[in-house]
Amino acid sequence: MRFRRLPKNIDEGKGVYNMSFDRLIRKIISMKNPTVAGLDPKLDYVPEYIRNEFLEADGETLKAASKAILRYNQLLIDALCDIVPAVKIQAAYYEMYGHHGVKTMERTIRYAHLKGMYVITDGKRNDIGATMEAYTAAHLGSVSIGSSECEPFGADALTVNGYLGTDGISPLLGVCKERDKGIFVLCKTSNPSSGEFQDLLIDGVPLYARMGDQCEAWGKETIGEYGYSGVGAVVGATYPEQLTELRKRLPHTLFLVPGYGAQGGGAKGIAGAFDENGIGAIVNSSRAIMCAYKKEGCDERDFAEAARREAIRMRDDLAENAHF
Amino acid sequence: MRFRRLPKNIDEGKGVYNMSFDRLIRKIISMKNPTVAGLDPKLDYVPEYIRNEFLEADGETLKAASKAILRYNQLLIDALCDIVPAVKIQAAYYEMYGHHGVKTMERTIRYAHLKGMYVITDGKRNDIGATMEAYTAAHLGSVSIGSSECEPFGADALTVNGYLGTDGISPLLGVCKERDKGIFVLCKTSNPSSGEFQDLLIDGVPLYARMGDQCEAWGKETIGEYGYSGVGAVVGATYPEQLTELRKRLPHTLFLVPGYGAQGGGAKGIAGAFDENGIGAIVNSSRAIMCAYKKEGCDERDFAEAARREAIRMRDDLAENAHF
Repeated sequence: MRFRRLPKNIDEGKGVYNMSFDRLIRKIISMKNPTVAGLDPKLDYVPEYIRNEFLEADGETLKAASKAILRYNQLLIDALCDIVPAVKIQAAYYEMYGHHGVKTMERTIRYAHLKGMYVITDGKRNDIGATMEAYTAAHLGSVSIGSSECEPFGADALTVNGYLGTDGISPLLGVCKERDKGIFVLCKTSNPSSGEFQDLLIDGVPLYARMGDQCEAWGKETIGEYGYSGVGAVVGATYPEQLTELRKRLPHTLFLVPGYGAQGGGAKGIAGAFDENGIGAIVNSSRAIMCAYKKEGCDERDFAEAARREAIRMRDDLAENAHF
Repeated sequence: MRFRRLPKNIDEGKGVYNMSFDRLIRKIISMKNPTVAGLDPKLDYVPEYIRNEFLEADGETLKAASKAILRYNQLLIDALCDIVPAVKIQAAYYEMYGHHGVKTMERTIRYAHLKGMYVITDGKRNDIGATMEAYTAAHLGSVSIGSSECEPFGADALTVNGYLGTDGISPLLGVCKERDKGIFVLCKTSNPSSGEFQDLLIDGVPLYARMGDQCEAWGKETIGEYGYSGVGAVVGATYPEQLTELRKRLPHTLFLVPGYGAQGGGAKGIAGAFDENGIGAIVNSSRAIMCAYKKEGCDERDFAEAARREAIRMRDDLAENAHF
């Protein structure tokens, strides 16, 4: 950990900003761990003893599956919350169980907050104008009902897709500034075919870098204490060269880095994602942590401790090989 | 209506395909109406008498709001189902009310199906590999729970964002083929800043056209009775030139056309979206139909009939000016 304190960013007349990623970065620094644990809970991942308990009570239903997943998530959070700063909730795996699954998503977010974790909803949402305002209210903001203000999901950050341009991003920038929230815009994703569009060259500059440049532009009003704005970028661990290139190109853009472990991105390749202070990125691992008990071959009732062991292994791997 | 019957596409040994968009196109032809009614229900759009009924019963809560919206949607569907072939469910406006809102989304889809309507979920979903499979199962497919198979949302088609390339689309192609479903990939969206990325030129070809070319490639295994594949494209009514250009470039790609009415796209500009048989596009209108009673200034209890009047006006406008 080579972090040095950077000059504070003073909001005129209001004192110090508390931008969303400041909170996240502070947690990363205090835990000496730039990991986010992905909670992408397929029912198959849930140990049988938990699955059986709920399926026996509620039958083979979306409701039973969703309750089993909530229990699984809670036990994982209990095992991780003092060593991992954040969780990433992959919306697809909750939607897969209908509104019951979405209820589990809500409750998982609340539980992670109760345990002091920072929550990133990985929804890759995108739309325009009033519709993007609705997504913003749903995931990061609140909704007026009569004279009451209700917070539907209340995550700290949301992943978004910028293909629609500024109209799709600007509705989010207000909450980043006013409500201490953040977004991560897809730039260079970790999958094999990400280059089909993202690597296309426009006047010699790949599309992912143009998207990155826009992240810098969108974030310029929300640069916080550590030099990073409320607008981050998703850049895959599977593309180490682009990670290093983008780190230099986008000095105010925090990176969410998927693809470590299961997708083949190693810790050495991630080194380029961090700045000279050892910050600037948070690295995701989902299946390797959630299903560590399967890989270890330990008793399934030990799944949460196995997840913790894998999270510690990953933290130490990042410290040693990514020079975090 | 200048539709001529095209040669049937025969699946070897299995007889005639029933591809998703065949069902939709058949409905459009039989109703002589290429309109999809968008159900993007902000609570403010719901007439006060409905809002009050539910808010009095359940308080100023996400649950009460969601129940009020369900009632509103059902009455709109009742008023539209014999003249409008399809509804488009904008997921953002349901997520905005948390899991209660998502329950209303499920029930709205079921109700629309009961009334014989084709349902497009407008979620603009995107992710890779196993995660995109989860979205596919959620919105168009089914999920295994023990020995049971559950269908979470069960829409007929889903809008998706192709920025992640083929890895993000291929998990959907199986359901398009096997389960009689369809997708619409964002190509040229209707918003003012859509050109920021979508109009960027790669070797002289704009990104939206490259995305369109991929739609043709992704769809080539699922070309149905009318010459259109299960992979459609979203192309905004606000860009008539691009609509016309893309219609010629993408002969097997059905267009979902947002931006008619409220966003400023007129029926004349949409003419280019249709092929020489008068098919090839479905045009969305959301607010203009849902809130017709506000524009008309009629009694709010007449909201559903006002929506029907607006849907008829739009159908006749498209027939006259878009030469549908």
